[in-house]
Formats: sequence, structure tokens, C-alpha cells
Amino acid sequence: MTKFGIAVFPSKKLQDLANSYRKRYDPHYSLIPPHITLKNPFEATDEEIKKIADKLVEVGEQTKPFTLRAYKISSFQPVNNVIYMKVDSTPELLALHDALHTEELGGPAEFSFVPHITIAQKLSDDEHSDVFGSLRMAGVNHEEKIDRFHLLYQLENGSWTVYETFRIGKE
Amino acid sequence: MTKFGIAVFPSKKLQDLANSYRKRYDPHYSLIPPHITLKNPFEATDEEIKKIADKLVEVGEQTKPFTLRAYKISSFQPVNNVIYMKVDSTPELLALHDALHTEELGGPAEFSFVPHITIAQKLSDDEHSDVFGSLRMAGVNHEEKIDRFHLLYQLENGSWTVYETFRIGKE
Repeated sequence: MTKFGIAVFPSKKLQDLANSYRKRYDPHYSLIPPHITLKNPFEATDEEIKKIADKLVEVGEQTKPFTLRAYKISSFQPVNNVIYMKVDSTPELLALHDALHTEELGGPAEFSFVPHITIAQKLSDDEHSDVFGSLRMAGVNHEEKIDRFHLLYQLENGSWTVYETFRIGKE
Repeated sequence: MTKFGIAVFPSKKLQDLANSYRKRYDPHYSLIPPHITLKNPFEATDEEIKKIADKLVEVGEQTKPFTLRAYKISSFQPVNNVIYMKVDSTPELLALHDALHTEELGGPAEFSFVPHITIAQKLSDDEHSDVFGSLRMAGVNHEEKIDRFHLLYQLENGSWTVYETFRIGKE
């Protein structure tokens, strides 16, 4: 069994900005590029993932490209000390998330969907309060079009490799 | 301008094996997963890469899946101190490489194509001779089918993100 996940990578510009923070504040910095998680990690066999990948082609065809708007720095505290760029919940993005949580694809999400790009995590309470203070002031204001998403799998060292990308929207 | 490259990622199994060496001997370990480079880094604008990606869809359709057979550990010494898993130059792999070096895609490759997966680099001469000695003894004997390749771009921190994957072979 291999662990898979589904995510969107923003443009180089937004990734470079996110990484400028992650480098210092996110221990997952070197394991995966900055991303929006669309579907949390799940296990699948080689056979299963081929069928899932075929379904993801359909999901891409049946959904629409969306505008990724990152408009402020937020935190999940008190649930955890994760600091993130908050991403606009557009109808297109929510529809894509829903299409990735049909019964065929393992059923509904465990938690409600808060689209975000993590930039800091595993901080102590004191670090969190310092870092959140300064990042919130720095803020973010970015907009771009997203027309693809990625199926990834995790290696033994914890890093993620892309298995396949899927274009969003009929061509 | 962004820097792009084209590569194949082998299965999790071979990546985990390669990473067990890269972790110690390859400073690029955290920048990109283990891979076979199919096309060396090139620069392109956002507009250009969209056209290139469309051409890569065609390349995928017009080429055939290939057997990746990694059958020994070699070194590029005396050219450089890179140690790698040597990959069989099958006709399908060579055809794919050629299809990625047409005039439309920037012309022929600068160097002759030696398919390989790097597992150690930037070693001193002494390190190289030690490490190559033990890795060559350990050897490698792995075979798998490859049916996709990846277009990647480089972030400012030197790491590579997948832009898109392309399936190989008509479905």
C-alpha cells in the first residue's frame, strides 16, 4: 500500500513567497512544495490507483478552472499552531473538492474544507504568537488562475512525488 | 522566464532505494525526487510553456511505454564524480528522448543520451572512490514499466515542482 494525496500547486511566484516563510517555519519545507490540499492522504494499491487516476481524469473534465485568491494570513489556533495563507472558497474550488469526495472516491471529507496554503507549523505556543504576529502584518494579496491538480504519493523519507497531473476543464 | 526540465520518476520502490543512497551522497536529495532526466533545463515564458505542454501531450501519444531496467552502478568519472544507476537504453526510451529534441522543442540534445538515475554527486575524488567502490558492490537489479513523464519547473530555492505529467502511449 502506498499513501496518496491530491493537491494544487500555485504558480512559481506564490510558491517562492510561501517558501520564503516555510524555509524558517515549516519542517515540511523540503518534503513537498507549497500547496493547497484537496484530498487528505489515503492508501491505495497499484491496481486501485490506476482506477482512481482514470476517475480523476473525469473529475478534471467535469469541473472548472478556478481563481486562487490568497488574501490574508490566518491561523488554526487553538486547534493547532498552523499558520497559513487563506484561500478564497470560490464555488469552482468547492465543486472540485466535492468531486474528489464522492462515494466512488472514498466518500465525504472528514472535516469541513478550509482552502489554505500552510506556511508555518509545529511551532511552540510562543513561537506561534510571535510568527503569526509578524506574518499577519506582512499579509498576502495574490490572485491567479488554476487549471490543474496533482495526484501525489509519499516516499519512505516522507517526501511527496507527483504521480500524475490532471487538467481542469474541457478543452 | 522560468527554468523547466523534463524527467521520469521511477516507482516508489526504486525511488526509496535511490534515496537511501542520495540522502548521504547527493546534495540535491531534497530538491527533486530520484529521476531520469529526459531533457536538460531550458528557459521558457508562461506563454511558451503552454504551447510546449500541448506538444508534450502529442509526444506522449506518439511514443510507447518503455521498460526501465536499472542494472548496474556506474560513474561518469573522469568527466565528473557523479555516481548513478545505469538504465537500459531501450529503443522506446531513445525514441522518447528523440521526440523531446525535435526542432519544435528546441533542437537536438547537446550531449549524447546516457539514461541514468543519479545517486551521488559533488563528491571529492577520495569520497568518490570510496563510495563508488561500495555502491558498485551493492549493485542494482530492477525492472519496471514506465508509462508517463513529467514537465517540471524550478523554484527560487532550487527545488523542482511538477507542472504537468504526460501519459505515454495511445489509450
